[in-house]
Amino acid sequence: MSGYKYLKEQVYEANMEIPKEKLAIVTFGNVSGVDRAAGVVAIKPSGVPYHRLKAEDMVIVDLDNVLVEGNMRPSSDTKTHTLLYKNFPGIGGVCHTHSTYAVAWAQAIRPIPNLGTTHADHLTAAVPVTAVMSDDMIRRDYELETGNQILNLFQERKLSYEEVEMVLVACHGPFTWGKDPGKAVYNSVILEEIARMAYLTLQINPDAGTIKQSLIDKHYFRKHGKDAYYGQD
Amino acid sequence: MSGYKYLKEQVYEANMEIPKEKLAIVTFGNVSGVDRAAGVVAIKPSGVPYHRLKAEDMVIVDLDNVLVEGNMRPSSDTKTHTLLYKNFPGIGGVCHTHSTYAVAWAQAIRPIPNLGTTHADHLTAAVPVTAVMSDDMIRRDYELETGNQILNLFQERKLSYEEVEMVLVACHGPFTWGKDPGKAVYNSVILEEIARMAYLTLQINPDAGTIKQSLIDKHYFRKHGKDAYYGQD
Amino acid sequence: MSGYKYLKEQVYEANMEIPKEKLAIVTFGNVSGVDRAAGVVAIKPSGVPYHRLKAEDMVIVDLDNVLVEGNMRPSSDTKTHTLLYKNFPGIGGVCHTHSTYAVAWAQAIRPIPNLGTTHADHLTAAVPVTAVMSDDMIRRDYELETGNQILNLFQERKLSYEEVEMVLVACHGPFTWGKDPGKAVYNSVILEEIARMAYLTLQINPDAGTIKQSLIDKHYFRKHGKDAYYGQD
Amino acid sequence: MSGYKYLKEQVYEANMEIPKEKLAIVTFGNVSGVDRAAGVVAIKPSGVPYHRLKAEDMVIVDLDNVLVEGNMRPSSDTKTHTLLYKNFPGIGGVCHTHSTYAVAWAQAIRPIPNLGTTHADHLTAAVPVTAVMSDDMIRRDYELETGNQILNLFQERKLSYEEVEMVLVACHGPFTWGKDPGKAVYNSVILEEIARMAYLTLQINPDAGTIKQSLIDKHYFRKHGKDAYYGQD
Repeated sequence: MSGYKYLKEQVYEANMEIPKEKLAIVTFGNVSGVDRAAGVVAIKPSGVPYHRLKAEDMVIVDLDNVLVEGNMRPSSDTKTHTLLYKNFPGIGGVCHTHSTYAVAWAQAIRPIPNLGTTHADHLTAAVPVTAVMSDDMIRRDYELETGNQILNLFQERKLSYEEVEMVLVACHGPFTWGKDPGKAVYNSVILEEIARMAYLTLQINPDAGTIKQSLIDKHYFRKHGKDAYYGQD
Repeated sequence: MSGYKYLKEQVYEANMEIPKEKLAIVTFGNVSGVDRAAGVVAIKPSGVPYHRLKAEDMVIVDLDNVLVEGNMRPSSDTKTHTLLYKNFPGIGGVCHTHSTYAVAWAQAIRPIPNLGTTHADHLTAAVPVTAVMSDDMIRRDYELETGNQILNLFQERKLSYEEVEMVLVACHGPFTWGKDPGKAVYNSVILEEIARMAYLTLQINPDAGTIKQSLIDKHYFRKHGKDAYYGQD
Repeated sequence: MSGYKYLKEQVYEANMEIPKEKLAIVTFGNVSGVDRAAGVVAIKPSGVPYHRLKAEDMVIVDLDNVLVEGNMRPSSDTKTHTLLYKNFPGIGGVCHTHSTYAVAWAQAIRPIPNLGTTHADHLTAAVPVTAVMSDDMIRRDYELETGNQILNLFQERKLSYEEVEMVLVACHGPFTWGKDPGKAVYNSVILEEIARMAYLTLQINPDAGTIKQSLIDKHYFRKHGKDAYYGQD
Repeated sequence: MSGYKYLKEQVYEANMEIPKEKLAIVTFGNVSGVDRAAGVVAIKPSGVPYHRLKAEDMVIVDLDNVLVEGNMRPSSDTKTHTLLYKNFPGIGGVCHTHSTYAVAWAQAIRPIPNLGTTHADHLTAAVPVTAVMSDDMIRRDYELETGNQILNLFQERKLSYEEVEMVLVACHGPFTWGKDPGKAVYNSVILEEIARMAYLTLQINPDAGTIKQSLIDKHYFRKHGKDAYYGQD
């Protein structure tokens, strides 16, 4: 019997949110979760349609991408996930989807500006978009370099992975993360909605701009941090 | 046993229309109802997902936002609701959503012009949008000032809250109201649909303009007022 | 017991397609059917939500809009329906919806150009849009004049009601008809889809134009007329 | 008892994916499958709504379109399907839909550019669009000439039908194919999604362009060919 039953079930449940929330079609998308004490990650097997997925199919790898347990090949994006776990010590789950509006912004290579309080409730910054990868990086170790593009972006822009839990990989699509796999998927749901709202806003008024810093701070800090008064915690 | 059982159930039912009508995702949105004789308001607890909500979770506050009954924190938007109840004496319910098209117009800081009879069936004016709040108001007592922005707008434009049962708060989203909580949500459903129709209309024809006053009056008054002949009442 | 049971059931079934096919929200829209031998029309009662509608609620009026049978007020659009029955002798059903894309074209006061074979499968012409009604017509007998606007348009443009079974009333929305109530609703389903396709097409390529006459004829006549070879009849 | 029971069931199942995946409304769309050993094709009967379709209704024709078995008329597009089977020897299924975004691109007579990895995961090229058919071709043998337009396009552009399993017929809509009927429908699902993503991308950024060849190759060849490492095969 697997020693990672709980982790596999948690990651399986989070993966099943992807089709339920319409964040990807067919086999696209994948969620992982980490057990930091055990040093392992559970992740969706590559290319399996959601309606055939079972909790025991989740693949266990270590943080160096070595297979620990599982009969199937892990998601082809595994190296991106593990690199994020190594560099973002406070996260417990990572989610990658091909949700339509987020992908459109990623393909447009445009950050999603903070145009309203729905966005500001979740992050203060624009949703950032990575640089286009060099030919060399693409050919070398593509999925690892995808992770490096994200890390470079956060470093260059001095973004905190705890405040900005989402990113657009240029020409590709979104990655999100959170304290656990469920929260990582939750952030993908939020991202898709703010991507859609921002799209519509700019179609109505191409001059709509980033909202005031005071409004961003108000909404962000009523939900996050020590003075938060939204929710029941 | 609660003395407000009926009010809580009515407000609970109205809140459950929000996910059913796809007016908001996750925990967004909230509906309240007032019992004017008792001087209390029932409102959704803050940050609770709809699928976990129960009628007894509704929080009872008085019109000065003092907790009367409930184990949970009321919606963070409570002060906006109570201010509307105090100033709009004929209303029995208030609804706030993050419905996608209405939010897009609010983020675009554009009123929704009256472009057709679907709109005119429900209100004669454009759906108004508040001014952007000052930094000072945001920092002072944000949710109360959100209500004040709505009141100021209605006063300045000489709008009747009985004829115009909906408003867009700039950079944020819609608030609607009505004679009871169910009617308040109904108005959010209508607002989302006219927001979407207006969006598409202006994409097809950017010069589409407000329809004739005679057509507005015809549609509005066949549904409202003493000569109404729409419906069964 | 009603002598119009069959007609009422047929019209009820057709009305229930409106919410099922998402052609209107809340109480919007209405379908009627005519029994030409009996000289009566069955139509949806005014303002009743679809989930509360029952077959026996259908209201029976004669072609001069006089109530024949029913406990409720007929649809406020009844006079438009009866005028169409009087002037289009071959039709058996009429449908009015507020479907979103068709309304957007009506509000834009733009005919829907014939941009492809999905459109040409159903009609050769652009979907026509009426003129904006005069103040005088609106104030006089609005619903009757709505019908007159449709009749005038068909006369002026020399359109055949048998070939063009749909129209957009400017600033309002679509009316469709057919050999029976079910076919009238079917045409509303088709209209909404070609309205949406045309919208998207012109967003992609604003210069997209009406397709060739030979292609229109090919598609229309493989489905209609004596040489049709589509379908099983 | 039919000697083609298995083929009919396989083709029936694939056809039923069309309404389930919302690739067409009413009776639009059709899927076929070929049994190359027997020299026959099973295809949807013409004009039958999906909710009334049964496996035994599938019509069997030979590759010259001669009826082999069946009580109904085969799809009016049958000649297009059989021509593709004759000329694309490796395919086992063909699917034609009227999915909304793919039709919009076809009506716009624009190829769908390869704007991101969702597209590149499935084909390296833009989704090609045929030339507009001449009046002469339309009047002669329309459905056969539709197939010829596709073949001509692939020949002129030196496209491989094994790498590009989808095409837009100008002013009409998409055809897709694959190793079996299910894979043909799968490609229609993918096409609709990349058509929608490309639409949105160009609305956000009209200057978004084809992604780098290295990125296209990386994504395509991690899923296809001898060095593929996506999926479980």
